[in-house]
Amino acid sequence: MLYEINEKALKLESEGKKIIRLNIGDPDMATPPEIVEAAYASMKAGKTKYSSSYGELSLRKKIAELRGVKPENVVITPGSKWSIFVTLFLMLKNGGNVIIPTPYWTAYDLIAKNIGAKTKLLRTEMEDGWKVDLNELENLIDKDTKMIILNNPNNPTSKSMDAKTLDGIVKLANEKKITILSDEVYGAIAFNETKSILDYGSDSDHILSNGFSKTFTMTGWRIGYIIANKMFVDKVTKINQITFNNVPVFIQDAALKGLELRSKIASDIKAKYKQRADLASTKLEAAGFKFTKPDAPFYVFPKLEGLVSDQFTLDLLDKGVAVAPGNSFGEYPEHFRISLTAPDDQIEVGIDKICEAVK
Amino acid sequence: MLYEINEKALKLESEGKKIIRLNIGDPDMATPPEIVEAAYASMKAGKTKYSSSYGELSLRKKIAELRGVKPENVVITPGSKWSIFVTLFLMLKNGGNVIIPTPYWTAYDLIAKNIGAKTKLLRTEMEDGWKVDLNELENLIDKDTKMIILNNPNNPTSKSMDAKTLDGIVKLANEKKITILSDEVYGAIAFNETKSILDYGSDSDHILSNGFSKTFTMTGWRIGYIIANKMFVDKVTKINQITFNNVPVFIQDAALKGLELRSKIASDIKAKYKQRADLASTKLEAAGFKFTKPDAPFYVFPKLEGLVSDQFTLDLLDKGVAVAPGNSFGEYPEHFRISLTAPDDQIEVGIDKICEAVK
Repeated sequence: MLYEINEKALKLESEGKKIIRLNIGDPDMATPPEIVEAAYASMKAGKTKYSSSYGELSLRKKIAELRGVKPENVVITPGSKWSIFVTLFLMLKNGGNVIIPTPYWTAYDLIAKNIGAKTKLLRTEMEDGWKVDLNELENLIDKDTKMIILNNPNNPTSKSMDAKTLDGIVKLANEKKITILSDEVYGAIAFNETKSILDYGSDSDHILSNGFSKTFTMTGWRIGYIIANKMFVDKVTKINQITFNNVPVFIQDAALKGLELRSKIASDIKAKYKQRADLASTKLEAAGFKFTKPDAPFYVFPKLEGLVSDQFTLDLLDKGVAVAPGNSFGEYPEHFRISLTAPDDQIEVGIDKICEAVK
Repeated sequence: MLYEINEKALKLESEGKKIIRLNIGDPDMATPPEIVEAAYASMKAGKTKYSSSYGELSLRKKIAELRGVKPENVVITPGSKWSIFVTLFLMLKNGGNVIIPTPYWTAYDLIAKNIGAKTKLLRTEMEDGWKVDLNELENLIDKDTKMIILNNPNNPTSKSMDAKTLDGIVKLANEKKITILSDEVYGAIAFNETKSILDYGSDSDHILSNGFSKTFTMTGWRIGYIIANKMFVDKVTKINQITFNNVPVFIQDAALKGLELRSKIASDIKAKYKQRADLASTKLEAAGFKFTKPDAPFYVFPKLEGLVSDQFTLDLLDKGVAVAPGNSFGEYPEHFRISLTAPDDQIEVGIDKICEAVK
């Protein structure tokens, strides 16, 4: 229902209705002007042609340098959603299943189903701090299991995985020869330190997905990347060649500018969102909602006992506030997701309306 | 071998070697400056957010108005290659076959095979003016045939389909309930008038793929569109949602500007390429090559009896000229494709080197 709510919110807005949009992870802040200017300079320099389906070497080199891998381990994609799609397409189009801890980002499940892959959901609970139980994971694995998708920090919970759990998952995956796809789009802006899948070696079979959307406020630019072993990077590139061909070079140049300014940009974003998360936490707690403290920007995933969040979400949209119902992320009917991605005053009004709605 | 040649040409260039690139349909001219400025203005206005997976309503409305359909029949894609991919993915991922006349654009076959669909090739010959034989087409159709792909005007031959043949194909497809995917990316800049699949009604099951790359010199921007019945447009949008999400809005605004200036831009391009096609034709004819006169910009697909074009192409690349071997477009070992997409002086030198190479 995530996309339906979004299209409905867009429609209401196009009809002139004011909607406080706390439903998607699209920051209210503008893309930093240096990034916009870099794109413009690149366009004017004629970087408007077809180019390599691997991505520009300059950008791949910079990412490789920052992440301690080789450029041949990096391939540029039109957003991290594409990275997920192409990975599942390559690994599961001929059958097999993928294990996904819940709550999860809706796209994983939609993509897997569209490709015809089976998904096995591994439930985690707020009351356990959203921790993956290694025994349950091991029990879920069967001979057709090809992949585990981790989202660290997690959307919608904003929870980072503790090192011990991640160590355990990697060990198990290595033993069972299962690939981990680690979606770390919120990693660079997490409030705390968290381990990356790259910490387990870049020549493994595991795959990192990352993007520029969240760290650099570049959501609508559609640019991300995959880090994996060279063989997998080559396979992704072959799919890139027969689909979108290449991310516009001027967009890659803009992303490169973002990486050059990364320390400043990321610390500004973290500070901003820390403030918002604190504000939201205080108000939601006072209204009786339960949730884990966000380890990363953007999302809170509160629960209220007895809530029917599908209906709650629709009613709230009529009151001018868009959020995402809990069932968009697995079977979490008492939860809903708030994206702290509207201007501060709107967030305040939005959260107040949410709290009033359950009085 | 089309992509291998291209990656090799890019590599040689990155090593400092001068390559005259007549191998891909990427115009040497710059994107018109008005289009670049429109993109910049849009970025600066903050059009850098997630947006609808259908595409911007403003652009869909403009396309609908120009093509005599409703906005609900239009969905924006990241290039016409994506349009082909998503159409084949939706129609053939659960089995079935697709009929493709040859010579064809390589991507059709690669996409179909990647999705696991069977392709049935329908050979056409230069000596018959590249005409599809309706009886042969009818004989190829079986109970699993779901689609016919037409490329009109054709890449690599630059031949437009005559109205009588197209009428016959549509009639046959309608009788057999087979969908036609008509790739018309060269349509708006053809030197002669040619019928569009839309002339047979926009509420049919047939699908138009078009793009901005060729008409507006926007190859690297990655933007195209599909026109189809509403049900199919909705299906495409659901795949857009789980893959690239949306074409950057500033790119859509740039394309809209292109459409506003279309008469001027398209007539400039046609005049330029008519001149190039005439020059190439004169030289190639004198050197003994056979080919049909181009009905559209960009490509000539000459034949020389006894030519082994895979080897010829590799040898030519060592001499600094990249072209595409005939076998990239079906089984045409005596043909190769020249793209007239380099600056005039380079085209002249390139064609001279080609002619010398077969002396």
